[in-house]
Amino acid sequence: MPSEFHTTRRIEFPDTDMAGIAHFSRFFVFMEAAEHEFLRSLGTSVSTEWEGNKIGWPRLEASCEYLSPVRFEDVLDIHLSVEKKGTKSMTYGFKFSLGETKIAQGKLSTVCCICNPGEKLRAIPIPEFLADQIQEAPTEEIQNGA
Amino acid sequence: MPSEFHTTRRIEFPDTDMAGIAHFSRFFVFMEAAEHEFLRSLGTSVSTEWEGNKIGWPRLEASCEYLSPVRFEDVLDIHLSVEKKGTKSMTYGFKFSLGETKIAQGKLSTVCCICNPGEKLRAIPIPEFLADQIQEAPTEEIQNGA
Amino acid sequence: MPSEFHTTRRIEFPDTDMAGIAHFSRFFVFMEAAEHEFLRSLGTSVSTEWEGNKIGWPRLEASCEYLSPVRFEDVLDIHLSVEKKGTKSMTYGFKFSLGETKIAQGKLSTVCCICNPGEKLRAIPIPEFLADQIQEAPTEEIQNGA
Amino acid sequence: MPSEFHTTRRIEFPDTDMAGIAHFSRFFVFMEAAEHEFLRSLGTSVSTEWEGNKIGWPRLEASCEYLSPVRFEDVLDIHLSVEKKGTKSMTYGFKFSLGETKIAQGKLSTVCCICNPGEKLRAIPIPEFLADQIQEAPTEEIQNGA
Repeated sequence: MPSEFHTTRRIEFPDTDMAGIAHFSRFFVFMEAAEHEFLRSLGTSVSTEWEGNKIGWPRLEASCEYLSPVRFEDVLDIHLSVEKKGTKSMTYGFKFSLGETKIAQGKLSTVCCICNPGEKLRAIPIPEFLADQIQEAPTEEIQNGA
Repeated sequence: MPSEFHTTRRIEFPDTDMAGIAHFSRFFVFMEAAEHEFLRSLGTSVSTEWEGNKIGWPRLEASCEYLSPVRFEDVLDIHLSVEKKGTKSMTYGFKFSLGETKIAQGKLSTVCCICNPGEKLRAIPIPEFLADQIQEAPTEEIQNGA
Repeated sequence: MPSEFHTTRRIEFPDTDMAGIAHFSRFFVFMEAAEHEFLRSLGTSVSTEWEGNKIGWPRLEASCEYLSPVRFEDVLDIHLSVEKKGTKSMTYGFKFSLGETKIAQGKLSTVCCICNPGEKLRAIPIPEFLADQIQEAPTEEIQNGA
Repeated sequence: MPSEFHTTRRIEFPDTDMAGIAHFSRFFVFMEAAEHEFLRSLGTSVSTEWEGNKIGWPRLEASCEYLSPVRFEDVLDIHLSVEKKGTKSMTYGFKFSLGETKIAQGKLSTVCCICNPGEKLRAIPIPEFLADQIQEAPTEEIQNGA
């Protein structure tokens, strides 16, 4: 039962800014894309249908700490770990690295919601088909980004 | 009856890339934002309701020619002119300048559609409340960007 | 001596995503743009020259908490306050609201650096011409977003 | 000697807008990314060093025609062909498709320049190491997107 996921991402030209490095806001896009890839690897999607309802995962909080810059065409290693699996919410931790160099680390908290068009968002317990597939990473693993 | 519109836009940090200039793809965002501001100036929106339907303007074609670069915090002058008002479509021309310097010129063709959720897009004649407010710019005006 | 700054920003079409709301990553762009506008209001820029060196403000940390969604053409009120003025670093707090509704709150920590091309980034004490113009907001003010 | 290149790209969440489809401006980012991947496949980069100079490829013109929308997580097929190899410039054509459905087609014209920091951009003949590796696609191929 997975508690972590690994992917990579190449820095593209419009990810960079006039300082010659990837813009800090892009790391939030990278985190989200890794989360979505993780969900696809479990056979689902961040935007799916379930029992006749549209299920989505609005963001509650996002944060990132920047340790070292990355440049055009660098290929980032991105390590996702499930830091917290609540009844209705998920918190993912992310470690970005380039070879041995730590680039950034971030966090994304999301909440499982029914997102039917024309209705108000309603938080729901994470459906079993998904909750049963995910487990929290051991605390140590989170700290080491192992 | 307006056939043109003027606005300005300051280049922001994430508009720039590692070449130190505004990324070419951003000019399409700038054109669209000017189009939307033009529609707001006429009391409507690119996304509105009319006779119980959702009206939108999907893009048919977009193009831009780049003449001179712009940099962070430069304030672009953006001149929109209505190059063609068809029965169902609109083509806007855009001139970007910085003081006396021509920066870029572009074009955006859009088509008026009913965009109800769950239905297929359907092109419709531009509603009168809007069509009556817009006229094509004289050809000369377009060429001079006057 | 200012410890806060106010600005507004209209949600543009490409700020939105398929959920019909402004994408969470855009709030980091909005925070940065408000920071840059604040620095311009003090007669300087996030990217400037000083005593023959290029001065910039690389980001150390960024975070945002999302309280309520915003939609296309909504005009956000953005309130910046100086949460911490260190010797070499600055932490800004941001409150986003739409009328009476709290939309989001975030934080941006930056460090003053010499960013000469071809040299390694070097953190420096905030130059006096700028440090003398900024003061920390009273703690209460920060909490109330007043 | 290659005159074409094929790649794919998955539509990400922030590529979409409130209309539920990929925003038209993103296709310019997709074209550029495909161009850069093509250059990497030839052992070079859009931003490289050559005989002590920095070589880059500023954009002259960009255009795109939109035929059918794409949605989140769709995987676009992108076909690049070399429409024109000038002495100093290159024009690439792009066909976007999703299975049998034509999605969009676009064009990107770029010019080979010395882009040394602090100097004015200077157009130069495409260096032989690159020019020798690229040939124009036959006209028919361009029309069929074969």
